[in-house]
Amino acid sequence: MIDRDRISRLLAERREGFSLPQAFYVDPALHEADLKAVFETEWLFACNSCEIKRPGDYLTLAVGDNPIVVLRDRDGGVRAFHNSCRHRGSRICGKEKGRATRLVCPYHQWVYELDGSLLNARQMPDDFDRGEYGLHPVHVEVICGMVYICLAQSPPDLARFRAGVTPYIAPHMPDRTKVAFEMTIIEEANWKLVIENNRECYHCAGNHPELLVTLVEFALPDDPRGPAQFKQLMDAKTAKWDALGLPHKPADGGEEFRCIRLPFHEGAVSFTGDGGPACRKLLGDFTEPDLGSVRMFRAPNNWNHFLSDHILHFRVLPLGQDRTAVRTTWLVHEDAVEGVDYEIERLTEVWIATNAQDAELAEVNHRGIRSMAYRPGPYAPSEFMLTHFANWYAGKMEAFVGAPSPVRIAAE
Amino acid sequence: MIDRDRISRLLAERREGFSLPQAFYVDPALHEADLKAVFETEWLFACNSCEIKRPGDYLTLAVGDNPIVVLRDRDGGVRAFHNSCRHRGSRICGKEKGRATRLVCPYHQWVYELDGSLLNARQMPDDFDRGEYGLHPVHVEVICGMVYICLAQSPPDLARFRAGVTPYIAPHMPDRTKVAFEMTIIEEANWKLVIENNRECYHCAGNHPELLVTLVEFALPDDPRGPAQFKQLMDAKTAKWDALGLPHKPADGGEEFRCIRLPFHEGAVSFTGDGGPACRKLLGDFTEPDLGSVRMFRAPNNWNHFLSDHILHFRVLPLGQDRTAVRTTWLVHEDAVEGVDYEIERLTEVWIATNAQDAELAEVNHRGIRSMAYRPGPYAPSEFMLTHFANWYAGKMEAFVGAPSPVRIAAE
Amino acid sequence: MIDRDRISRLLAERREGFSLPQAFYVDPALHEADLKAVFETEWLFACNSCEIKRPGDYLTLAVGDNPIVVLRDRDGGVRAFHNSCRHRGSRICGKEKGRATRLVCPYHQWVYELDGSLLNARQMPDDFDRGEYGLHPVHVEVICGMVYICLAQSPPDLARFRAGVTPYIAPHMPDRTKVAFEMTIIEEANWKLVIENNRECYHCAGNHPELLVTLVEFALPDDPRGPAQFKQLMDAKTAKWDALGLPHKPADGGEEFRCIRLPFHEGAVSFTGDGGPACRKLLGDFTEPDLGSVRMFRAPNNWNHFLSDHILHFRVLPLGQDRTAVRTTWLVHEDAVEGVDYEIERLTEVWIATNAQDAELAEVNHRGIRSMAYRPGPYAPSEFMLTHFANWYAGKMEAFVGAPSPVRIAAE
Repeated sequence: MIDRDRISRLLAERREGFSLPQAFYVDPALHEADLKAVFETEWLFACNSCEIKRPGDYLTLAVGDNPIVVLRDRDGGVRAFHNSCRHRGSRICGKEKGRATRLVCPYHQWVYELDGSLLNARQMPDDFDRGEYGLHPVHVEVICGMVYICLAQSPPDLARFRAGVTPYIAPHMPDRTKVAFEMTIIEEANWKLVIENNRECYHCAGNHPELLVTLVEFALPDDPRGPAQFKQLMDAKTAKWDALGLPHKPADGGEEFRCIRLPFHEGAVSFTGDGGPACRKLLGDFTEPDLGSVRMFRAPNNWNHFLSDHILHFRVLPLGQDRTAVRTTWLVHEDAVEGVDYEIERLTEVWIATNAQDAELAEVNHRGIRSMAYRPGPYAPSEFMLTHFANWYAGKMEAFVGAPSPVRIAAE
Repeated sequence: MIDRDRISRLLAERREGFSLPQAFYVDPALHEADLKAVFETEWLFACNSCEIKRPGDYLTLAVGDNPIVVLRDRDGGVRAFHNSCRHRGSRICGKEKGRATRLVCPYHQWVYELDGSLLNARQMPDDFDRGEYGLHPVHVEVICGMVYICLAQSPPDLARFRAGVTPYIAPHMPDRTKVAFEMTIIEEANWKLVIENNRECYHCAGNHPELLVTLVEFALPDDPRGPAQFKQLMDAKTAKWDALGLPHKPADGGEEFRCIRLPFHEGAVSFTGDGGPACRKLLGDFTEPDLGSVRMFRAPNNWNHFLSDHILHFRVLPLGQDRTAVRTTWLVHEDAVEGVDYEIERLTEVWIATNAQDAELAEVNHRGIRSMAYRPGPYAPSEFMLTHFANWYAGKMEAFVGAPSPVRIAAE
Repeated sequence: MIDRDRISRLLAERREGFSLPQAFYVDPALHEADLKAVFETEWLFACNSCEIKRPGDYLTLAVGDNPIVVLRDRDGGVRAFHNSCRHRGSRICGKEKGRATRLVCPYHQWVYELDGSLLNARQMPDDFDRGEYGLHPVHVEVICGMVYICLAQSPPDLARFRAGVTPYIAPHMPDRTKVAFEMTIIEEANWKLVIENNRECYHCAGNHPELLVTLVEFALPDDPRGPAQFKQLMDAKTAKWDALGLPHKPADGGEEFRCIRLPFHEGAVSFTGDGGPACRKLLGDFTEPDLGSVRMFRAPNNWNHFLSDHILHFRVLPLGQDRTAVRTTWLVHEDAVEGVDYEIERLTEVWIATNAQDAELAEVNHRGIRSMAYRPGPYAPSEFMLTHFANWYAGKMEAFVGAPSPVRIAAE
């Protein structure tokens, strides 16, 4: 059903530094290709390991049509399986989060161990070989508390990503956090528009009043648009972080990922309405609240902020060519006490507002791209991360259709 | 649009005794084929003749995109027509049930007799030949009060079915019943999963507490899984039924239909919360309430229970590849009086609960089958009727695509 | 994706004087063709010029997937643009109606002049050529206050239409009106069924009690079905209109448009519940309320009534193969005062009721046409305008697929 020649032609039409040809955003046929070429081959951010802390804790998600269950096994390891019974295919775990000593299919009560093996299938004949009917596994990697899954037979290598981001994230000790709040919103827009929206702050000034109380719009330490104050802010903050041994310069993530520590506005330390801390109990062993935020993202489906007092994870999953689910989790220190150390409203209000504004922008973007008058437009210099993303995406599609890879731009 | 070669390849992949290849359940293209190969060629259970008792009584339904009207004509016969005006195609009868001396199109008031002939078309010119514009008829057969329709030009033969089930059903005298209650639910699942769900009680223990108060899970008189008590129950009940001249052994329905009389649990006589009767006035000439239930079904779209005190009909109609309408009718003796002989709640509560549970199971089954990890799984021995159904369905599809028929299993 | 050979075959099947072959009404593939062949090539009624009276007033609509903005420029001219930012395609104007000194994209605040030129694009590099990134224009013509737009590169000629209808409409002085009320309803039917429904009054007697208080069913001055009273009514009214210099005989619109003045029932002068005026202040310079109504329509998407006291515009836009938006606007003299000269309820009640009845008829028509038993049926003589419309439509489709045009019937 997927027309690889057509995709090749569309890729050939693509102009670097410009938004993608229309079909990539709005054509259902291309969406099918996206699922195959990207979401069934790449590592995807699934959840936080602190969400499945104890053996038997599980969390479910759907990657396209594929229901997946991620769980903590008896040995404390994280595993993932296709959440589909080997009997007649029924989805096994129905809740988004739960706990089970074993996985039992609700239909006919086939019982699976937490390692996926089929323990019991009542009424099956004596010659039935349970060993052939274990759950199909999904690859899992846990990096600094982030659970990544991959549906491919042979997943790509994550070593560069792991090595690149660990020095930035590890000091925030994500293993000692808990989920304070989570929220999933549905955006009526293609997933790539949701990602593009996240990859630039060109739109912030006109749309995100709550966010800009604390967030500095500039995404590069030496942003040429930055005024003298920004240079002074950078110098002051990076000196402090150097003294604390906290890395801040951009990691070498190429088009795959980005990791950098950037300051908040002078006087602000967290994403709150007044810039003050969102949680009195700082993460890990921190005593200094003024750590800016480690801004991380990885193609294709997540972006993250690691602050002194909380961590934000954003997970993007396509539901259709024009529907995308965005899940946000707010993590705080595992010993922080709600009502004492933090209030949910103060912790979440800036990004709940910002997410809603971004959803509206992505939706309006999607509707406008449907126009016959749409032509790919030029990214502004401050949208350089969209060029990275478009190149990354085109590379995945080229690999999928077997086309040769054009020359790419250098990393930022 | 229908790719017959692809369907042939999918049929060749099918393994007897296993659930169907994925596409048959979840692919919209296969759903189009189902409509053509099954629902536009086979006899379909439409309604009960007691629902259209008087001349002019009509009932409407939709088979795929085809609106159909079934009615009682002036001579007391049951007829069915395509419910589409010959003028500009408007649907004529809009209500699910109604009564009319003639059928009048709401758009321009073309008037049809109850035999389908066009009686009047106002404003049409003198040379307009009304004889060419009668309603297109649909084949009808009434068997023991069950109205079957067939949209094909040349319907298949129903003689074996009629002969096979009449001895079981006729004593319940469905012609002397009325509808006490009816209910249609929409299940977000492929129609074949709704049928598969009905064809086994392997799932009952884990899901149907209300039903299992009275229903015995075993579907064969000599079920090898049945304990000694079941054997004793069968022996006691069949002796009684033999004495009453009521047949109970499985009819020879092959893969097309099934008809058998089976007992309730000891002490139970009807599908009620306590096993007691649901209606004091028994059907037909019965004086003995302990008649178990005649369990009947016929591929592709119905299953039925005939008890001493009421009759249950279940009608399945596909609304889309992942949406199915299930209509349940509860029939009681035509002279039974609500509030005196029966209470609606007592009569219906077991199957309203059971239908809701089955809908959930079918929906969760459908979602799980969408997974890329889905592989056809083995039916349990107690799921032998699913093998029958899958074979029957494959036979219909093979006939449709012109493929040779593989060897089938013998009837149960 | 569009199969032109198939469309040619369907056109060849078409029989003049009969409703269209099924696929034209219910097949999504044909709907795609309709958008390309009709809605992206033809002049479409968009709105009334009085809705965008002042410079900067704008109104938005969507033609298929194409968001369009129509506005009044600084020089008082009416312009239309594709409502999609040249940066990354975002829809620019989101409200249905608004006012702006310049058009500013909500995403990154690119600023466009009211003539479509790009005035400012902040953060873009020095070598960015704003001249290349103006809004894509859409053709506009204003005829007697009706704003028509055309998305084609080279729009068809409107001269005959303009010349044909102006003598009828100009005396009603639409430039001196205002919108008293507007309403959009969504009909679950193909747009061609909505148009067909409008093009005949064969269905009126059975469906439109409110409308028939005032509307005469006959659409031709010499309708052979008309009784002697109708002939007398016509003679009396046309004598009056001739004396006032108001044209009434059918304009020569062929299959493209129709324009005619027809009387109301004796004693009625407006579409109200009692036939009395809907607005005390008459349009333009009228002093005589008994002017019947100028009934106008133009293929593919509008019909209109021009009365002595108000004007009605109906705009049809397809939302999908089985969904159509119908927008109705009621215009009164710009100096008429609500509550003094007119009441909204009295002004609108007849057509709000009529629109709802027509929506139901179009929907039921659509559902019935889906039937496998549907065959194109014969139009009645009073449905001659449907033959015109079907011929016009077939001509558009033939031009689109490059098929030769068959002989057409003469104009009425």
